[in-house]
Amino acid sequence: MRVAVIMGSTSDLSKVEPAVTVLKDYGVKVDVRCLSAHRAHAGLSAFIEEANGNGTEVFITAAGMAAALPGVVASQTVLPVIGVPLSGSVLDGMDALMSVVQMPPGIPVATVAINGSKNAAYLALQIMAVSHPELKQKLLDDRKAMEASAMKANAEVTEKFAL
Amino acid sequence: MRVAVIMGSTSDLSKVEPAVTVLKDYGVKVDVRCLSAHRAHAGLSAFIEEANGNGTEVFITAAGMAAALPGVVASQTVLPVIGVPLSGSVLDGMDALMSVVQMPPGIPVATVAINGSKNAAYLALQIMAVSHPELKQKLLDDRKAMEASAMKANAEVTEKFAL
Amino acid sequence: MRVAVIMGSTSDLSKVEPAVTVLKDYGVKVDVRCLSAHRAHAGLSAFIEEANGNGTEVFITAAGMAAALPGVVASQTVLPVIGVPLSGSVLDGMDALMSVVQMPPGIPVATVAINGSKNAAYLALQIMAVSHPELKQKLLDDRKAMEASAMKANAEVTEKFAL
Amino acid sequence: MRVAVIMGSTSDLSKVEPAVTVLKDYGVKVDVRCLSAHRAHAGLSAFIEEANGNGTEVFITAAGMAAALPGVVASQTVLPVIGVPLSGSVLDGMDALMSVVQMPPGIPVATVAINGSKNAAYLALQIMAVSHPELKQKLLDDRKAMEASAMKANAEVTEKFAL
Amino acid sequence: MRVAVIMGSTSDLSKVEPAVTVLKDYGVKVDVRCLSAHRAHAGLSAFIEEANGNGTEVFITAAGMAAALPGVVASQTVLPVIGVPLSGSVLDGMDALMSVVQMPPGIPVATVAINGSKNAAYLALQIMAVSHPELKQKLLDDRKAMEASAMKANAEVTEKFAL
Amino acid sequence: MRVAVIMGSTSDLSKVEPAVTVLKDYGVKVDVRCLSAHRAHAGLSAFIEEANGNGTEVFITAAGMAAALPGVVASQTVLPVIGVPLSGSVLDGMDALMSVVQMPPGIPVATVAINGSKNAAYLALQIMAVSHPELKQKLLDDRKAMEASAMKANAEVTEKFAL
Amino acid sequence: MRVAVIMGSTSDLSKVEPAVTVLKDYGVKVDVRCLSAHRAHAGLSAFIEEANGNGTEVFITAAGMAAALPGVVASQTVLPVIGVPLSGSVLDGMDALMSVVQMPPGIPVATVAINGSKNAAYLALQIMAVSHPELKQKLLDDRKAMEASAMKANAEVTEKFAL
Amino acid sequence: MRVAVIMGSTSDLSKVEPAVTVLKDYGVKVDVRCLSAHRAHAGLSAFIEEANGNGTEVFITAAGMAAALPGVVASQTVLPVIGVPLSGSVLDGMDALMSVVQMPPGIPVATVAINGSKNAAYLALQIMAVSHPELKQKLLDDRKAMEASAMKANAEVTEKFAL
Repeated sequence: MRVAVIMGSTSDLSKVEPAVTVLKDYGVKVDVRCLSAHRAHAGLSAFIEEANGNGTEVFITAAGMAAALPGVVASQTVLPVIGVPLSGSVLDGMDALMSVVQMPPGIPVATVAINGSKNAAYLALQIMAVSHPELKQKLLDDRKAMEASAMKANAEVTEKFAL
Repeated sequence: MRVAVIMGSTSDLSKVEPAVTVLKDYGVKVDVRCLSAHRAHAGLSAFIEEANGNGTEVFITAAGMAAALPGVVASQTVLPVIGVPLSGSVLDGMDALMSVVQMPPGIPVATVAINGSKNAAYLALQIMAVSHPELKQKLLDDRKAMEASAMKANAEVTEKFAL
Repeated sequence: MRVAVIMGSTSDLSKVEPAVTVLKDYGVKVDVRCLSAHRAHAGLSAFIEEANGNGTEVFITAAGMAAALPGVVASQTVLPVIGVPLSGSVLDGMDALMSVVQMPPGIPVATVAINGSKNAAYLALQIMAVSHPELKQKLLDDRKAMEASAMKANAEVTEKFAL
Repeated sequence: MRVAVIMGSTSDLSKVEPAVTVLKDYGVKVDVRCLSAHRAHAGLSAFIEEANGNGTEVFITAAGMAAALPGVVASQTVLPVIGVPLSGSVLDGMDALMSVVQMPPGIPVATVAINGSKNAAYLALQIMAVSHPELKQKLLDDRKAMEASAMKANAEVTEKFAL
Repeated sequence: MRVAVIMGSTSDLSKVEPAVTVLKDYGVKVDVRCLSAHRAHAGLSAFIEEANGNGTEVFITAAGMAAALPGVVASQTVLPVIGVPLSGSVLDGMDALMSVVQMPPGIPVATVAINGSKNAAYLALQIMAVSHPELKQKLLDDRKAMEASAMKANAEVTEKFAL
Repeated sequence: MRVAVIMGSTSDLSKVEPAVTVLKDYGVKVDVRCLSAHRAHAGLSAFIEEANGNGTEVFITAAGMAAALPGVVASQTVLPVIGVPLSGSVLDGMDALMSVVQMPPGIPVATVAINGSKNAAYLALQIMAVSHPELKQKLLDDRKAMEASAMKANAEVTEKFAL
Repeated sequence: MRVAVIMGSTSDLSKVEPAVTVLKDYGVKVDVRCLSAHRAHAGLSAFIEEANGNGTEVFITAAGMAAALPGVVASQTVLPVIGVPLSGSVLDGMDALMSVVQMPPGIPVATVAINGSKNAAYLALQIMAVSHPELKQKLLDDRKAMEASAMKANAEVTEKFAL
Repeated sequence: MRVAVIMGSTSDLSKVEPAVTVLKDYGVKVDVRCLSAHRAHAGLSAFIEEANGNGTEVFITAAGMAAALPGVVASQTVLPVIGVPLSGSVLDGMDALMSVVQMPPGIPVATVAINGSKNAAYLALQIMAVSHPELKQKLLDDRKAMEASAMKANAEVTEKFAL
């Protein structure tokens, strides 16, 4: 299992890292790159081509403002491309969301929430789990753990206000 | 290859059909359902459970207004869930987009454009292609055809304005 | 008089507490839960069913981002469901407002302002007061006190600028 | 059971009528008025006072643009006030939604979707059902019918695409 | 020359004070009140009636969120009513702007910028200057001073960057 | 009594005419001009100067898109300037509203609703009425007539639904 | 003088033609292409490279939805790139505006109004006029004609309402 | 090579300086002015006329709120006018963006991102480079340097996450 994570700028680093952490926790090989669609055009194309041929199964792309990165990657691969619109400009990421989610027919980008890189990782895992039964089982186990943890929090809240 | 397509209301039918058409053109088995998260709660849960166990690889979910359907499906499966926000209310689908894309950490929905059901189908195909090499090849071929068709349109436009 | 207050995440706690405080001040029995529609699906359904049968008169539900909680509760009860859209994401609660207020016909959610949990409590009290004359009288008395307090503030402002 | 329905302008008539129809179908006595907060100030106050004393249990208020009506009614009663923001201006009801839902603490308005007068009626019914067991039973029955009808539509959709 | 300044809440005080300062600098008699349209309904009506008869020439009204105050004042007077939408909620005053500016035909509110209380004062002065020639002259003089001050700032900027 | 009405484009004519009609009905002398701030800069300045000296009491300015007209007029007069943001572009007048209402300190524009030219006329009348007692009386009479007409409509609505 | 006009889709043709017409009226050689950044990636790059070397002075790029085209062109040239955000999706071009105007530092796109292809042409002409004195003179002459035409329209409006 | 940079207020200084710095780094003569369209009308016109005749090749204009400055400059020159919408009010620059980008046909403003003064400088350079081959070469060199720097950052990111 191998995922390519591309951010558009080094200033996005802290917003992208949660995705890398989740993926590595699941034992996924992660290639992280910083390749702006606008400033590193040739390098980006070269990396996409490389990833297309090295067993990468999913792209995660994260960018802010007029975020062309996800769409540009999507136009050069038929692997699933996940787009994470990032805040950062004064418009709180709404500009990035519009630039990422409103793709024209034929070239989809799987968009998650603004700054939602953690969910980008989970979505990548779920995509890979379609053909990796052991990953699917781990995701199911973790869902159960997430639910158990949620119910534990609920028990604490219940008690706190029952006092 | 099997995809479950769920819409929230029969009034969404014409906006969802393009996804079904694309999927069937690719030879995918498609189960289409109309199961509102709000009006057919039990039926929806039953269908999700069924799909989880019958070889379905991807969910496509389409809903308008306060579109809870994609998130509710996502909460009951670890299969990839694609969300299509639909217009229909006076707010042109912005309400649905907010309701679909802004999912909390742990339960991702792969959101496409407002009314973007065609791209939902292509995204589903790309997801399944990760483990279906022949589908991947067909997608690559179709991308080339799409590009050829785009270049043909370009030739026509070039000529039209060169006159 | 009994009200069920459900939040979607423990991070919403401080935004929900004002509702609990108001309700307890009025002598209402309050059951507070933290049950995400997405992460604690089964636990949420179980609690709704329990509340439907234990004399609860109103639900108050508070959630942020793609806030499915209010609608999911509303779909499983015919008790009045009040929805409080919460800010928290980068979009200042506009995403939650869209997800809560734009419910489809048949399953209403009584939506209050973004972060308006205090008003959720007052609305719950007013709903219960329809059949609790002594509560209605207390609300009328408190309205008079609120008006008196407003007029006192007005007197202070008048004087301050008359100097 | 008695509900007061107030619209701000005769041009809102067709958007408000669905609420009246639902309420009458449930055997509720409905008083319908057209009393603008801005153009019929005294008449509005007189009617609110009258309704406060004649057994009315819920107000439904519907207005467009800078929709002050719901808040003004809410400030003169402790009965639950439901607000229906109406489209009509060039802004598609977003102006009305902001004017209705963002009420200050102490004076809640239970806001439903833009043009959501049908849900205003259902919300009023659910509020009255808190103390009217037979109405509650009828709502529960109708929910079941709604679900049955949704499942029937699902069966038709299922079959249509299975062909 | 007499102006009535009404704010909806004591929390608006610091945003309203600039208007009072400007007006007093021009020698205008200013009556400042804090009278919420929702919480001090009767007191507000009483003050409007008083102002209508005591030589007040303009109302300045400032409120946040679902800002009904300007419209409610406008509905009870034919004096010019200036509305200042205030920020304060999470929506940065956009909710107040919608609630103030989108008035229905017949009941105008002269709306200024979000938090624009200073301009509310200047607008009030310009309105009174229509029939107060000496005030008009003072406004013209001050415009000239404002322009001179702007040109002085320009000279400084010019020099700063010419270095 | 004299009012200058300036629109930015002949395509705004039908949206501006209601203001002229109201003003003429009140016996006001109206000078109507079509002078774009961007395309008729010199002509606009000449007309503003003329109006400043010919007894004009109020400017009404109406423009769409990046509506600079109201602010440009306001910068060249100390007469009250009313701004009417017009729809027309794809953004439904929200662009014009932002361009008209968000004026910087010192140069106010009295903004009315999008396409609210009728209210611009009423606001102009109310401004002139500050020093024209007979106009004020006529406005008061018309308010009473408006209220009577509203109450008549209310009576009709009441009866219609009482059937 | 040579301008390259690129649209993203043949469906944009009618919105782009006004730019071509204006440019040809000024005797500019225009190369019109239809090259989607997403569907005709290689063809687009080839054309940009060609235009970079054939005397083209300005690019005009027009695209809707997640409009990556202007930014992608801008990243492959140092010629000025004008971006025209197009409406077409349900969001009235706001998505395209965000995608075009919010470019990161270093790669500017000169953005004009939504559907503003006519102004894109004028901007291209003004850019080329910096070094083409005869074009500058023609633009100055046409501005004068535009102003004369505006003043003629003003005369007609003046007369119409003076009747 | 000469560029005129005009800001609307001294409070915009820090947001405009990056443009001046970039231009000076390229050896461009820069005239910086602070001339509000609303407060320094005559001074602004005088400076535009001066710049039109002194070899200035491009205007950069930066303003916030109801930002009329770019359009007013554009209406008095046929030199290219770049507009920088500035944040500053509570609306985060969306008001300025609407006021700058939505210009009517005939008078274009080349709009860059909110607070995008650095890109305004690059755009001005690219415009001047059309007729200054040595500037064009320098821009091409700098693009290469920018790309090299981006690739170096990418190498660092690659390594950081490969550890």
